[in-house]
Amino acid sequence: MNSVLAGLPTTVFEVMSRLARETGAINLGQGFPDDPGPADVRAMAADAVVNGWNQYPPMLGLPELRQAVANHYQHHQGLALDAESEVMITSGATEAIAGALLALIEPGDEVVLFQPMYDAYLPLVRRAGGVPRFVTLKPPHWRLSEEALAAAFSERTKVVLFNNPLNPSAVVYAREDLELLARFCERFDAIAICDEVWEHLVFDGRRHLPLMTLPGMRERCVKIGSAGKIFSLTGWKVGFVSAAPEILKVLAKAHQFLTFTTPPNLQSAVAYGLAKDDAYFEGMRRDFARSRDRFTEGLRSLGLAVLPSEGTYFINIDITPLGEEDDVAFCKRLVAERGVAAIPVSAFYHENSVRNVVRFCFAKKDATLDGALERLAGLG
Amino acid sequence: MNSVLAGLPTTVFEVMSRLARETGAINLGQGFPDDPGPADVRAMAADAVVNGWNQYPPMLGLPELRQAVANHYQHHQGLALDAESEVMITSGATEAIAGALLALIEPGDEVVLFQPMYDAYLPLVRRAGGVPRFVTLKPPHWRLSEEALAAAFSERTKVVLFNNPLNPSAVVYAREDLELLARFCERFDAIAICDEVWEHLVFDGRRHLPLMTLPGMRERCVKIGSAGKIFSLTGWKVGFVSAAPEILKVLAKAHQFLTFTTPPNLQSAVAYGLAKDDAYFEGMRRDFARSRDRFTEGLRSLGLAVLPSEGTYFINIDITPLGEEDDVAFCKRLVAERGVAAIPVSAFYHENSVRNVVRFCFAKKDATLDGALERLAGLG
Ligand SMILES: CSCCC(=O)C(=O)O
Ligand SMILES: CSCCC(=O)C(=O)O
Repeated sequence: MNSVLAGLPTTVFEVMSRLARETGAINLGQGFPDDPGPADVRAMAADAVVNGWNQYPPMLGLPELRQAVANHYQHHQGLALDAESEVMITSGATEAIAGALLALIEPGDEVVLFQPMYDAYLPLVRRAGGVPRFVTLKPPHWRLSEEALAAAFSERTKVVLFNNPLNPSAVVYAREDLELLARFCERFDAIAICDEVWEHLVFDGRRHLPLMTLPGMRERCVKIGSAGKIFSLTGWKVGFVSAAPEILKVLAKAHQFLTFTTPPNLQSAVAYGLAKDDAYFEGMRRDFARSRDRFTEGLRSLGLAVLPSEGTYFINIDITPLGEEDDVAFCKRLVAERGVAAIPVSAFYHENSVRNVVRFCFAKKDATLDGALERLAGLG
Repeated sequence: MNSVLAGLPTTVFEVMSRLARETGAINLGQGFPDDPGPADVRAMAADAVVNGWNQYPPMLGLPELRQAVANHYQHHQGLALDAESEVMITSGATEAIAGALLALIEPGDEVVLFQPMYDAYLPLVRRAGGVPRFVTLKPPHWRLSEEALAAAFSERTKVVLFNNPLNPSAVVYAREDLELLARFCERFDAIAICDEVWEHLVFDGRRHLPLMTLPGMRERCVKIGSAGKIFSLTGWKVGFVSAAPEILKVLAKAHQFLTFTTPPNLQSAVAYGLAKDDAYFEGMRRDFARSRDRFTEGLRSLGLAVLPSEGTYFINIDITPLGEEDDVAFCKRLVAERGVAAIPVSAFYHENSVRNVVRFCFAKKDATLDGALERLAGLG
């Protein structure tokens, strides 16, 4: 058995969702909306499954979806991509990240990771033979610093894996942080895998800035997006990868042997969805921001210390004022005694862990959020 | 970039399908039916996408599908599996194979592969750090031998990857071959990854015998199945993995970071399909066997040397009588001059390649097969 994988725990998201199902807890742990997703996009998929092609689509994805991804990024982010040579469809962003790491890392290469990080990153880097180097980010600002980057990068750095907007921190990085990171990527000739699955979930008039659009970065980024996150259809597992042709060619070699392709019916529905007008995406952001605000106010009125949420489905609280308990003990108690599932942010750290932050998913109906707040009453 | 992946060619199936699309050739290369798949199964998926849950299902798969897989194998193959601890759903059989190799191989472990082999096997083994050892099978019988196995197995063998029924050879292995393989797995304490995606596609009253049901093999097999192949819905990418609990636990660690999960709407439709009655599966086999016979007769009447096809979607011809040309040159000429795409079987070999066998997919409508035969007229 493989020593990297055999010893791993089950991902915290699955553990918490299972626990919530078993105990009837309100699940604000794993990040998914309890909204069913846009009816018209689902209707398109249903139509395609009944009337369309259900055999292997082209390995890189349906041409109409690859073109829709290119058009979408051009329109929303000013990023010009050639659909034919620079866009590939994957079975979710997780496959895209796994494939990118397997394709870009040669055993022994160093990979810079930023903690807190999604829990798939480190085992995937290790299984690919990479040697992780960590940049540790801390609340409440989670900012990058020249010093921290200088300590992590070296002549052996080949790949950087960077998530922006950042889950679980709910930060949307500003241009200056990205410029700093870009300078290091250029200086050390590293490729940046940019997990930008939360790109549409940015609030209060913020704009997501793809690392790929920074000067010098166009040819050294692998940009990863997710239809599941964009359309609140997290079970669909349709991801997009954008990269310069020479990089994409190698990523395609990993994809062809990891899943080969992605259901064509879901692909064509996503192509339709990506062409929706600005009002749709603005409305979606407004709805999520409204849920965030409702939940923030609720938590505050319970006396809890809420950290700012600039983007993603998430909001964090600082549990320091509540006593000695660390985040894991707190979450265990929360699900057992209060019937509310949340995620301890230490699960996103490999070392030098932050232990006083707990993450809630606010991408829920008002009734779900209000129900959770009721259960949390008296906590603060 | 990774040296195993960076140098790979695009998979021959994709190359041939692209060529067929571009030139208007009749595509008998890549293995997929041109039938749309069962209407009731597709209607179930459409209903689930409109009225069901579109968020993350449980990471191991929908409980109803895991139970349906266990029931299906009990009924059709006399294999008793515990749905809860021994069955997992993946995004197609390719993901299942990739995950199993990443989970079971520690760098330096030897892996026994049987040529001809599906073209994903070798790069996946290498990328996982495995050291391949080849058993070479030859037409027309493609049988295993004690000698060949003895030459490939060693004290360092950890994993065997075996495809039965065998693509491209269209052989359904008999009990004696499987017993021989089982003896070697036991003697060298190896785990067998059993790619049994063609398990339902066996003709002329044959029965598929899962390696897992042989004495001593229950705890050392990873059995892989494919809804796409069972229901002629190759684009759906819903696979099943069955293994003893201690093995499945490790496979789940790979799955959770490769794709995490598989679209729930397709999963529930497959659960429905797997419960279909015997008449359905017998009818399906009868229809495929009829296509095989129609195409075989057509090829024979053109004077071509057809090899037996006991299972799969495929039939092979021996091109030796046609002249000096090898299989690759023959297939190139076939698509360019005749407008028919086929697969050169040498693409399934790493070394000691067979160069005189060409594979056709017969899983097509009569009109498609007849059209291809017309274009092949005068070839023999
Ligand atoms: C694949 S389950 C995790 C979903 C998610 O993005 C999160 O909860 O952080
Ligand atoms: C994933 S494309 C290959 C399909 C197939 O099984 C074959 O043609 O052999």
